[in-house]
Amino acid sequence: MSAHPQVMIREVALRDGLQSETNFVPTKKKLELITALARAGVRHLETTSFVSARAIPQLADAGELMAKAARGGLCHEVMVPNLKGARAALDAAADRLVVFISASEAHNQANVRRSVADSLDDLEQVFALAKDRSVPVAAAIAVAFGCPYEGRVPGEAVLNIARRLAEAGADRITLADTTGMANPLQISDMTAFFRDHLPDTALCLHLHNNRGIAMANLYAGWMAGIRIFDTSLGGIGGCPNVPQAAGNLATADVAFMFEAMGVATGLDLDGLIRAAKMLEAILGRTLPGQVMKSGPAALHQEPPGLHWPG
Amino acid sequence: MSAHPQVMIREVALRDGLQSETNFVPTKKKLELITALARAGVRHLETTSFVSARAIPQLADAGELMAKAARGGLCHEVMVPNLKGARAALDAAADRLVVFISASEAHNQANVRRSVADSLDDLEQVFALAKDRSVPVAAAIAVAFGCPYEGRVPGEAVLNIARRLAEAGADRITLADTTGMANPLQISDMTAFFRDHLPDTALCLHLHNNRGIAMANLYAGWMAGIRIFDTSLGGIGGCPNVPQAAGNLATADVAFMFEAMGVATGLDLDGLIRAAKMLEAILGRTLPGQVMKSGPAALHQEPPGLHWPG
Repeated sequence: MSAHPQVMIREVALRDGLQSETNFVPTKKKLELITALARAGVRHLETTSFVSARAIPQLADAGELMAKAARGGLCHEVMVPNLKGARAALDAAADRLVVFISASEAHNQANVRRSVADSLDDLEQVFALAKDRSVPVAAAIAVAFGCPYEGRVPGEAVLNIARRLAEAGADRITLADTTGMANPLQISDMTAFFRDHLPDTALCLHLHNNRGIAMANLYAGWMAGIRIFDTSLGGIGGCPNVPQAAGNLATADVAFMFEAMGVATGLDLDGLIRAAKMLEAILGRTLPGQVMKSGPAALHQEPPGLHWPG
Repeated sequence: MSAHPQVMIREVALRDGLQSETNFVPTKKKLELITALARAGVRHLETTSFVSARAIPQLADAGELMAKAARGGLCHEVMVPNLKGARAALDAAADRLVVFISASEAHNQANVRRSVADSLDDLEQVFALAKDRSVPVAAAIAVAFGCPYEGRVPGEAVLNIARRLAEAGADRITLADTTGMANPLQISDMTAFFRDHLPDTALCLHLHNNRGIAMANLYAGWMAGIRIFDTSLGGIGGCPNVPQAAGNLATADVAFMFEAMGVATGLDLDGLIRAAKMLEAILGRTLPGQVMKSGPAALHQEPPGLHWPG
């Protein structure tokens, strides 16, 4: 028996990962990925988003994907930008909606051309609609650990937004480090701050690796008590055409770390590696995930020969 | 003033990084890198190793490099495999020797074709010689967190080797995760174990990123009290021809994490990025470091435009 409770790993490659790909991934390939992920034990998928096909053409097949995706045992979470998207997602039988807002005014304006206050008002309608249909809603707060336009965002500002979202009905709040600006001590502090002031709302971390320290940030969040994490198959995400960008943490790498520490994930590493290699073949380039290259067992997996001098 | 003591970052790109490159890097280029590193505040360099040029042709210029390298303010640490190498390093005015041994019998046999006990005996001569010349000696223990041949190595076995090395005169012990098998809880436990049983010997961590979690391992080590870390410019290391292999943690990424947490490193991030880009140009391929791609400031550095939805 593990000394630690199981963690929940949300797979976001199909939405956060594929949305930034240059080429549209055919719906059939997405369905194959969903099947491979389900076989690897994935239960929580951010499957797609109902958003303007003009804005995000990579997700233009949201309706078809939801209609054809396997259902048994899978929770299909669908990100929605507004009431129209929420209606479409509910009509497509989304198991859960995910709304989002930015912690900073500048980032929220850049994303949705609204003030934070206006976005909060708008989202009330989404919460009300979902409640009518008895579908749970989670909320993600972008740039929660720092905004590329405004810099560090005060924890109080993030908390105030989270409180509004929780009061409106969000049963889970994701703190997103959208452009990789967080550090581990900041994650620890923010987690403790939320635990003190919003103890009844589940927290999730969504961490980009722009500065190479996202895995330390994730570990710090786990040490501080967070048990839900967004990860992406193969570590995709960010924009492959912008060299500064960086993806999410790779699902297999995160799962490896937890399993190595004796923390159950419910995921099968071999299955995740198979799915990541399938994604690598679909995208036609080497993906950043490491366990998919080195193997999960960590034992008897290294090529023999000279390792000198360590 | 920082709430935390300064950490010491040892730069190992010139030895652990370059030794696994396919092509020999000209001595002149190595000297330029040393100058760039010194300008970025690096003070502790693993500069080269005096080892058979047949075994490691990339380091065949050890004598010339040491003769021509800048000296002011730099501590040139030189890895030596045996008494012959130690003599050569001392004759080249190494500021410190670094000896190594593996925690497992199988890895030590593969590396130096000796039992661990025989290696410990051999190293006594190196320690004695260095003591005669009043040059300090550090020791690195390879595969301290797991061996690709034997699996997990018991902490007691690692400690016993470390004790012998400390008794022989090592004033610093490096625990090396040679093939990326460690996890953060294991690092925490091992650090506490060493603090309890070998409290007077400085500990250093040398972490490879084969499974994508080395930064979490480093953070766990720091949280447990370690203040000396090996890093590599650009994150080079491992073998570029073996896709399973992975490098060390990138110096700029580690320095960014510490500086972001308010922990002084003595390093200048802009200078490290310049040095890493120089190395990238020398090697002619994209290096794994992230801060060298994303920039250090984390503020006003992101490309403007749509980040939707976080």
